[in-house]
Amino acid sequence: MNKQIAIKEIINFLGSNVISVFGNIENVFVKHLKPCEAVDEDTLDWINPIRHDKQFIVENSKAKVILVDEKTLYTKTIQDQNKILIVVSNPKLCILKIGNQFFIEKVEPEIHPTAYIHPLAKVGNCLYIGANASIGACSIGNNVKIYPNVVINDNVTIDNNVIIKSGAILGFDGFGYERDELNNLVKFPQLGKLIICDNVEIGSNTCIDKGSLSDTIIGFNTKINNLCHIAHNVVIGKNVIIAAQVNISGSTIIEDDVWIAPNASLRGQQKIGKGATIGMGSVVTKDVPSCETWIGNPAKKMEK
Amino acid sequence: MNKQIAIKEIINFLGSNVISVFGNIENVFVKHLKPCEAVDEDTLDWINPIRHDKQFIVENSKAKVILVDEKTLYTKTIQDQNKILIVVSNPKLCILKIGNQFFIEKVEPEIHPTAYIHPLAKVGNCLYIGANASIGACSIGNNVKIYPNVVINDNVTIDNNVIIKSGAILGFDGFGYERDELNNLVKFPQLGKLIICDNVEIGSNTCIDKGSLSDTIIGFNTKINNLCHIAHNVVIGKNVIIAAQVNISGSTIIEDDVWIAPNASLRGQQKIGKGATIGMGSVVTKDVPSCETWIGNPAKKMEK
Amino acid sequence: MNKQIAIKEIINFLGSNVISVFGNIENVFVKHLKPCEAVDEDTLDWINPIRHDKQFIVENSKAKVILVDEKTLYTKTIQDQNKILIVVSNPKLCILKIGNQFFIEKVEPEIHPTAYIHPLAKVGNCLYIGANASIGACSIGNNVKIYPNVVINDNVTIDNNVIIKSGAILGFDGFGYERDELNNLVKFPQLGKLIICDNVEIGSNTCIDKGSLSDTIIGFNTKINNLCHIAHNVVIGKNVIIAAQVNISGSTIIEDDVWIAPNASLRGQQKIGKGATIGMGSVVTKDVPSCETWIGNPAKKMEK
Repeated sequence: MNKQIAIKEIINFLGSNVISVFGNIENVFVKHLKPCEAVDEDTLDWINPIRHDKQFIVENSKAKVILVDEKTLYTKTIQDQNKILIVVSNPKLCILKIGNQFFIEKVEPEIHPTAYIHPLAKVGNCLYIGANASIGACSIGNNVKIYPNVVINDNVTIDNNVIIKSGAILGFDGFGYERDELNNLVKFPQLGKLIICDNVEIGSNTCIDKGSLSDTIIGFNTKINNLCHIAHNVVIGKNVIIAAQVNISGSTIIEDDVWIAPNASLRGQQKIGKGATIGMGSVVTKDVPSCETWIGNPAKKMEK
Repeated sequence: MNKQIAIKEIINFLGSNVISVFGNIENVFVKHLKPCEAVDEDTLDWINPIRHDKQFIVENSKAKVILVDEKTLYTKTIQDQNKILIVVSNPKLCILKIGNQFFIEKVEPEIHPTAYIHPLAKVGNCLYIGANASIGACSIGNNVKIYPNVVINDNVTIDNNVIIKSGAILGFDGFGYERDELNNLVKFPQLGKLIICDNVEIGSNTCIDKGSLSDTIIGFNTKINNLCHIAHNVVIGKNVIIAAQVNISGSTIIEDDVWIAPNASLRGQQKIGKGATIGMGSVVTKDVPSCETWIGNPAKKMEK
Repeated sequence: MNKQIAIKEIINFLGSNVISVFGNIENVFVKHLKPCEAVDEDTLDWINPIRHDKQFIVENSKAKVILVDEKTLYTKTIQDQNKILIVVSNPKLCILKIGNQFFIEKVEPEIHPTAYIHPLAKVGNCLYIGANASIGACSIGNNVKIYPNVVINDNVTIDNNVIIKSGAILGFDGFGYERDELNNLVKFPQLGKLIICDNVEIGSNTCIDKGSLSDTIIGFNTKINNLCHIAHNVVIGKNVIIAAQVNISGSTIIEDDVWIAPNASLRGQQKIGKGATIGMGSVVTKDVPSCETWIGNPAKKMEK
């Protein structure tokens, strides 16, 4: 992990995001990103635009190279320190892109020999399938990463660029019962599918059930964290963020851009409107209108 | 999946549940069950008895064959549409039985070559054990389905017709500690068993610990959904429904026919009386008397 | 499991914990520990010091040998019953040590042939690694137990005497996103590590993410139960007890000796002070000062 990235290469990668550069970038390299308390000479540092003491932080940073926004000045002090400032409109987004481009270890395509893949599974290109994963007769697109010990049932459709983390369980029967004449519980037949759209990320040990008669659908670019339960027939839109341990009961509809905080519970057959926010640990028993924030047990609209 | 089921065969299967049949059933077939918005000519449709607009739904359904209750009339309109009405006392229960009989894909007995089974395990007949499951020196009855990546520890007893879904972890040590003279945490010895009775269903990634000195017991026909935690010494009765992400702490007793909604938490050493209902996200810190409904954090009796 | 342990051997093991012994211990053996309702002649029984009816319990126990504290008297009745009393200062802690020493089945070191271990993993001595576990290029100390179907990612450090239960997922990417210029969610680079200190226990299906820029750290002797989520950059101190299904969001600091009850949720970037207690199902959105107890949704300080 002894990386060394030329500042020139980073500036080149950022392209038109770069507004200006101060200092001499010839033969300057950075080695890593670090949290603020551990920044050293070889760190590519950055200043969060929301900070009020940007100038102070820049002047006191041990780093040689710092990503800043336009409100930071290239003062005489900074100049005397031989620091380099790279000015961009959004330092946080730039550091994130740099991190993903230069510093994370890429997961290379591989199908691990201990993974089981059903002979009728249709699988795309550039797949990573980790150790001890169990893949049924399902359909998987291109550039999908399936981490160790994931289980995918038959009849699941997974589109492109999806990430499925370890221990996730996808596409099994939902939880539905009726009482028969003798008061015994009889299983509702589970005949639907599970469809996962492009760019979805599914967290470790999360369970997503298939539909009963209709399908369970996870929309484009939606991100789901660890240990969530998503029941049969749930339909989730695009760009939704679902934090850890969220429970979504059957047939709930979640529209685009919703944000659900950890450990919230959503009753079945409700609708969470576009852009709504559900607070941590909330117990939602009603429809939530678009763009509203609901919190508490039972959840109520939060007034500003 | 191009099924085609003769209506005659379905009527025969329903037997004495059929009160009467209207229309000509010769050479009529259905192909699938569908949610109401997707019903087509080949769907076996059904009308939920709780609907007030049954007659309207029947007349507007695109299906050729519809399961109805006795309150639906075989009107001239329906007759002119050449529809077939199968009259039964409980259309919902009948459609469910038909779905399970004719439309779900049966899981055939199989022990997957990647599953590990301890040489001292005692296993019954007609087992399905999926890929990468890990089965200890336990005892398993007949007609049990163990899905991929399930883990069962030694000394677990599993009776007949049990379904254990992927990633469930059964029969490991409970969570009990004492502080020693030096204030360090020392594990309480976990010496009990885990006993799973006939017809139990256990959801994906659910964890059920063995007993510490006595046993953990899951009673006949109890159904447990995904991501639940059931601690040491918990004793659960018959026909109990436990929804997703429920937490049941140590030594709690749950009597027959209890219904626990998602994400409820039950303190240890409490008793939930027969037929009680625990609401979603409830935090139960006291005994709950028989047939009462408790909700909230902390949970209190819900008054009608 | 037909064990038979000589009382002499147990007294020898307890050493200086034994204050006095009443009755004749020659050729006396016990066979098991049992819950109070199942105590028989062969049980090593014990009386919890907090009971007010100790004398009554001792006189009515069916056991031949009973561990008691100094407040229990060796009366004529007990003497006539030919019972043996072993007097210790803390019978509960002694029975626990005896259970761990004589009655639990030890897990022998073994690396199961179906486990996958990355060739670059550095592993210590006396390891147990169960079936279908997936171990990345990580570092594992001595005397570590890794149960079946655990997944450990690259770059995780696990110290000595750690127990990791089945289905736990350790050291994968945390859940962090920024919106880019097009409002799409872009992953925050996850470059930190996960460090698990000596004597930690991690429950089944628990997920602990690695750090983003700094590290996630689980401190010495901390015990974590099943189905917990511990996010990136969380730092947990020593001797912390975390019950089942607890959610700890990113960058939270938990100091030594904290106790977190089941299903509590902790917002990110908070600090839980040394010795604090968090109640079951609590939703903690603020820092909790040292030694305080907080409960409810939202959690507030519990006044005595």
